[in-house]
Order: sequence, then C-alpha cells, then structure tokens
Amino acid sequence: MRLNPVDLIVKKRDGGCLTAEEIGFFILGAADDSWPDYQVAAMLMAMFLRGLDTGETAALTLAMAASGDQLDLSGLPGRKVDKHSTGGVADTTTLVLVPLVAACGVPTVKISGRGLGFTGGTIDKLESIPGFRVALGINEALDQVRRDGLVIMAQTDRLTPADRKLYALRDVTGTVESIPLIAASIMSKKIAAGADAIVLDVKCGNGAFMRDLPLARQLARTMVDIGRQVGRKVTAVISDMNQPLGQFIGNTLEVMEAIKVLRGELEGDLLDVCLTLGSEMLLAVDAVRDEGQALQMLRQALESGSALEKFSRLLSSQGGDARIIDQPWRLPQPASRAQWCAPCDGYLTELDTAGLGHLFVALGGGRKTKLDPIDYTAGFILHARLGDYISKGMPLVDIQASDAAKISQVIPALHNLIKLDDKQPTAKPTILDIIRG
Amino acid sequence: MRLNPVDLIVKKRDGGCLTAEEIGFFILGAADDSWPDYQVAAMLMAMFLRGLDTGETAALTLAMAASGDQLDLSGLPGRKVDKHSTGGVADTTTLVLVPLVAACGVPTVKISGRGLGFTGGTIDKLESIPGFRVALGINEALDQVRRDGLVIMAQTDRLTPADRKLYALRDVTGTVESIPLIAASIMSKKIAAGADAIVLDVKCGNGAFMRDLPLARQLARTMVDIGRQVGRKVTAVISDMNQPLGQFIGNTLEVMEAIKVLRGELEGDLLDVCLTLGSEMLLAVDAVRDEGQALQMLRQALESGSALEKFSRLLSSQGGDARIIDQPWRLPQPASRAQWCAPCDGYLTELDTAGLGHLFVALGGGRKTKLDPIDYTAGFILHARLGDYISKGMPLVDIQASDAAKISQVIPALHNLIKLDDKQPTAKPTILDIIRG
Repeated sequence: MRLNPVDLIVKKRDGGCLTAEEIGFFILGAADDSWPDYQVAAMLMAMFLRGLDTGETAALTLAMAASGDQLDLSGLPGRKVDKHSTGGVADTTTLVLVPLVAACGVPTVKISGRGLGFTGGTIDKLESIPGFRVALGINEALDQVRRDGLVIMAQTDRLTPADRKLYALRDVTGTVESIPLIAASIMSKKIAAGADAIVLDVKCGNGAFMRDLPLARQLARTMVDIGRQVGRKVTAVISDMNQPLGQFIGNTLEVMEAIKVLRGELEGDLLDVCLTLGSEMLLAVDAVRDEGQALQMLRQALESGSALEKFSRLLSSQGGDARIIDQPWRLPQPASRAQWCAPCDGYLTELDTAGLGHLFVALGGGRKTKLDPIDYTAGFILHARLGDYISKGMPLVDIQASDAAKISQVIPALHNLIKLDDKQPTAKPTILDIIRG
Repeated sequence: MRLNPVDLIVKKRDGGCLTAEEIGFFILGAADDSWPDYQVAAMLMAMFLRGLDTGETAALTLAMAASGDQLDLSGLPGRKVDKHSTGGVADTTTLVLVPLVAACGVPTVKISGRGLGFTGGTIDKLESIPGFRVALGINEALDQVRRDGLVIMAQTDRLTPADRKLYALRDVTGTVESIPLIAASIMSKKIAAGADAIVLDVKCGNGAFMRDLPLARQLARTMVDIGRQVGRKVTAVISDMNQPLGQFIGNTLEVMEAIKVLRGELEGDLLDVCLTLGSEMLLAVDAVRDEGQALQMLRQALESGSALEKFSRLLSSQGGDARIIDQPWRLPQPASRAQWCAPCDGYLTELDTAGLGHLFVALGGGRKTKLDPIDYTAGFILHARLGDYISKGMPLVDIQASDAAKISQVIPALHNLIKLDDKQPTAKPTILDIIRG
C-alpha cells in the first residue's frame, strides 16, 4: 500500500504506533520537502501530544541519522567514544575533556555546535582563538585524529539535514519540549558522528532545558534506550545546572578556564564533571577496568601535563595560536570591564542561571538567532558559588565586553538574578545520577 | 502584552483555554497569512487533541464569521431563518424546503455550496438547470428576496475566508474530524449569512460525516451552544443517513425529484425530513403557534401549489428555464442508461451510503477535488428502501450518465454496497432527535 502523509498524521493523532517504514517516509519527506511544512508541523504536534514509544523513537533517530552524511570511524584503531552535553551555562567540559581522554590513549572525533539562546557552544569558544579552523573535511579530520588522537570540528549542513529541518520547525510551532523528539534529535547527530560509545552529559536545573530531575532522568533513559535499540553503548550522566558549571562565562574566558583546569590550577565543579564524564568515557570503551583506575589515569594525564600537551596539539593542528596557553593576552581582549559587588550580606542561595545566560547574550557574547555576530571577549567571571557566605560590598561578578554601553545596560539586571539569604542552604551534589546502557 | 503565535500554540498544546482576543489573533493571522501555514497547522492539531470549550468555540465561530463579508438582512421584514445540512447522499431538502417555507410567508436567503467528495451540493443541482445563475451580488439577492420571498445563491470567496483557509489546511493535516472545529466552520458561515434563526439538519449514519448518534448529538449540541453564546436561535434536527434520503441521486435527477415532491406526487423520507425542518423553521421565527399549525401550513402550501409556484419564481428570477417543471426533458439528458437487478431474494438490510456517494463521483456526477468538471446527468435511481423485500431479478438500481464506459465500470461495484438478508430488519425512524436552543 502506498503511504500518504494524512493517513500517517491521523494514525499518530489517534494514538497509533508508527512503523519504522512509516517514520522513514515522514523523515525523508521532511528532508526533501515532499511533505509540506504544514504536514510536518501537524505530525510534530501529534507526536508531541501522543508521544513516541521506544521503537518509534529509535526509528526516528536512525531515519534522521541516515538523512545525511554519516562518519565511518572504522578505519581508526580500537573502540571510539563521543560525548555530548544537552547544553548549559559555562559548560566548558568539551575543551577539557577531549584532550584529557585523548591523553589517556582513547582517540576522539568530536563534532560540536555553536551556541544559541542562553547556552554556549564549543565551536564559538574555539573560534575565539586566533587562527583556529573548525570547518574540516572528513578525511582531514580522520588524518588528524590518527596523528594527534583528537579533533574538534563544526557540524556541517550535510550531517542530519532532517534533524535540522525538524528542529527549525519545532522552534516555531511550539513542539520543542518533547522528550522523545529531543532525544532523537541529539542521538541522530551522535549516531551519524560514528562513535561506538556515547557519553551524554544531561544538564538539570535552572540553567538547562531540563529543569527538574524526573524530566532529566526521563530524557537520559530515553537516550540510553535508543542506544540499546540501535546497538551503541550509551551512558548518561545527569549533572547539576542550578549555577554556571565553571566560574567563567564567555568564549575567550572559557578557553582560559579550560587551560587553567588542564594545567591543574583550578579544581571545583567543572573538573569534577570532567573527571566523571572522562571516567565513563574510558569505561565505555573498556580502556580501564573500573572507575578507580579511570580516575587515576585521568589525574595522571593532568599532573603529567600530557592533557595540556594534547590541547596544544589540537590548537596547532587546526591552525590555532597555541601560544595562548602561556600567553593568554594573545586572545582577543575586552575593551571595557566592570565589577558588580554584593548589595548586602548573606548566603548565596539562588542563581538564575538561564537568566545569566540571557544576560550574556544581551552583553553580545551569544546569539538570539543563528546569524547574529558575537563578541568573543564578552563575559562574566563569578566570584562565588551557591552556599558561599557573601559580605556586603564584596565583588561578586566581573563583567567584560568590547562594548562599554552594553555593560552599563546589563549591570542593573544582575540584581534580579542573584538571591542572598540569612539561612545557609544545604549543599547539593554536582553529579545527580548516572544511567548506563 | 503583545501576542505571539508560538505562545498561543503552547498554551493550547498544554490544555489551556484561549481568550477571545487570542482566538481572534489566530484567525486574523490565518486569514492574512501573518501566521505561516505550519503554525496554523500546529495550532489546529493542538485544538484537535486538546479540544475547545464552549466559549472558545463561540469565539472561533465569531472570529471566522468576521473575517469576511457579513450579510445584513435587517432591511427585510420580520425574523429571518436559514437552514443548513451537514451533508449526505440524495439530500435534496434545500430545493424542496426553501420554496415551501417561502410559500408560508417566511422570506429565505439561502447561501449554498457545491458538492465535494461523496456529498452532493445544492449549487450543482441548480446549475444543472439551463440558464440558472447562482452567482448573485448581495443587493441583487436582497432585491429578489424582497420581491419573490426566496433566493438561493453560491457562497462567494468573500464570505468567511478564514474558514476556507482553515478548512483547506485541516483537509491535508489530519484535523478534519473535530466536533468544535466542524461546528465553528458551519456556524461561522451561517452567522455571516445574517439570519436570526438557524435550523440545522445534522445527518447521522453511514452516508454522513457523523456515523453514530452520540457523535451527531455532540455536534448538534455544540452548534446549538454556539447559537446561545452568540445570540442566534439554533435548532438542530438529527436525521438518519443510513440510506440516501431521496430515491434519486444526481444533479438533474434530484431537481426532478424535488419537483415531484413539490407537486405532491412523492411521499417518503425526503418529504418527512422537509416537513420536520420546515416546521422547525416556522417555529424558530414564531410564524406559527405550534408544530401542528406548522405542519398544516406546510401541507397547505404543497397542496395549493403555492410551494411549486415559489420554485418556479426562483427559477425565473435567477435566469433558469422554468419550463423544466412541466417538461423535464428540457434538463440535460443522459446518453446512456443501465439497470442493475437483485442477484438474489431477501430483505434490503444494509446500504453503504457513502460507498454509493463515492460511486456517484466515479460515475462523473461528483468531484474529488474542487476543480473537477461534473456530468449533471450522471446518477442512480433506487427502487427499494431499507427493510423492503426484494425478489431475485427485480430492478434495484437504474444507472445513467453521459459516458457509457463509466456506467460499465461502476456496475460491478454496486454488488458490494447492497446487502440482502433472510431476516427482516427492524424499522428505524428517520428523525432521530431534535435539539432546540
């Protein structure tokens, strides 16, 4: 029987379960425009409200992965591992993690995206480094990873075009916040990127898409289930995003912070999350026996300087100025700086993390739409973390940007994003859960 | 606060109740294309799955009515009444009813549509009469109703453009079968048509959109509720459509059948439904005390010939050849005829009425898409009704058309649409319910 769009929309609308063939027809139609946008939109809303079961979600993921180029990493030695973060503020993990894992002998091909809305993107951070090239051909990337053990490249338009089409439509049709649609979108890109194992960093909190733990767990489980269905080993780490992960928010600032961590000069939540993710990555490809051995190997890579050395290799191989590692003033410098001080005494009990992300966009550091230019130097440095006691007048946030006027506009808004209270809040863990496939 | 499409889609998606202002913004946006089709489609699917309450449905109806021209009938004397059928097979009521009610002294401005899919349309039937003009200007129509007491005209593109836009999108996005969307679509046209009272003929059965009584009742009540909300008196008659209403299916054939009924030569379900609807129309504008008086007045209009006289006036005033009333051979004549006879003995227990309608389209009498040309002469004459005992070899269906080849194609399919059985079925009423606002 010939498939037709209206029949499939009606089937999903009435709560039916679509076959892999039917989902393939939908995704192919969305990608080649044989399904008009209004039919794709109606199907997306029906999927949003009726849901997708495990089989449908896996079929959707595979169909989107197959809609464009797929990387073949089989020519590289051993099992390959990839990582992905669902997006947060000051989430500098990739810049630390990829050199760290590569230094442990596990080659990594990482395809990253740009920032959009309140979440940053690894590609923007790397592009803030003078000369760094993110647009690599597949063969060039494979050569580099064979030679250096690591590569970080920008997603091309030829990877998962169906996902891009669907994502653009979901954004304007009120169908973004669907667990199976989000899971399929993320996993389709990771599957097309070719790794055998995938470690996911599912952010949870007021600076993430998943605001509470039950939702984050549901997303994590859905992605782990997709992995099981399609034969990839998936581990999901759920980590806290109720405050920026690092102390630095901004493109050049986060490059500097990553270097500090790789040097072993900075401990804290960012390093903790990197060690957990790194440990799961090493475990996922059987590079280590257990977590204890993994952590030992990772710490050793930091202490010996081999992780920093890998980062330096990454910069040089992709045309970036590796001297920034020792001479940070070679990064673009802000024209203007300001400081915001605590208006009263108290414990730092709450940080509106997404609000801070939006303020970062307003400062010029991020994008509202895909084509907005960005100011690499714009950013914040936070001098306190949740639970810290703050004295009135103490510097809480440094602000920097190329445009002094934007700094003046942003400062008054900081007040509403930070809550100080007499009562000390209870400490919360940074790693909330780990779900292994 | 400025309204934006995505916020409203999300509100409905999450089960919220839209305000009249929000619904007005949606309908205006759909009509002037400031909402792209994909956003309209997403909203329609959200409305389909989340439903609309009475207030939302009334707001949707009023917004669609206000999206184009609205007839002002206040210049005509007395209270005006309109009727509408939800569509069926051999539903010739309008051609009988409008002259009948006009003959009782109640002026009627009837705006009708063309047939689409398995349901026929009054405008096509009238256009099968040589010379008959259905495209009238509003002033011309009002002059005619003042002079003759009746007019039947085609809906123009300027009436409820938002409904037309929504309907076209619903058709291709799997969002047709929604009670509030169907009710708002029908009622918006009736409200724009300007009458004080509206009598609805809600068809129920295997030849109607509403296949069972609970659904038909729900649609009827929804439309009566809309009337109450917007200040129009609405009566809904639910009538059986498990067999074609008249014996004749076809454009010229139904004109001939209407003349037979108006002459008093043909009794049966078609006349019964016309008398019930006519009675409700007279009651709705207080032209009579009670049903008894209404029926007496309607029967008198038939017996005196004044209803037929009104029909003749309608034809002449709109350029049609009124001689067809006495000389039916002046209507277009089919080039070919055939007869299908009962293959065995038995009671006629089931007729696939929609199937018969689709076969009528295949014969050339109806349209699959809006632009298909039609053969006015194509049609069927049924020689039996449900419950009749049939002897093998008895002529059951006459078939006629301009194209003999199409007749040959259609005949083999008749077998599957008609069920004969040894057991006599229990008789069912034609009028299933009446709901008064």
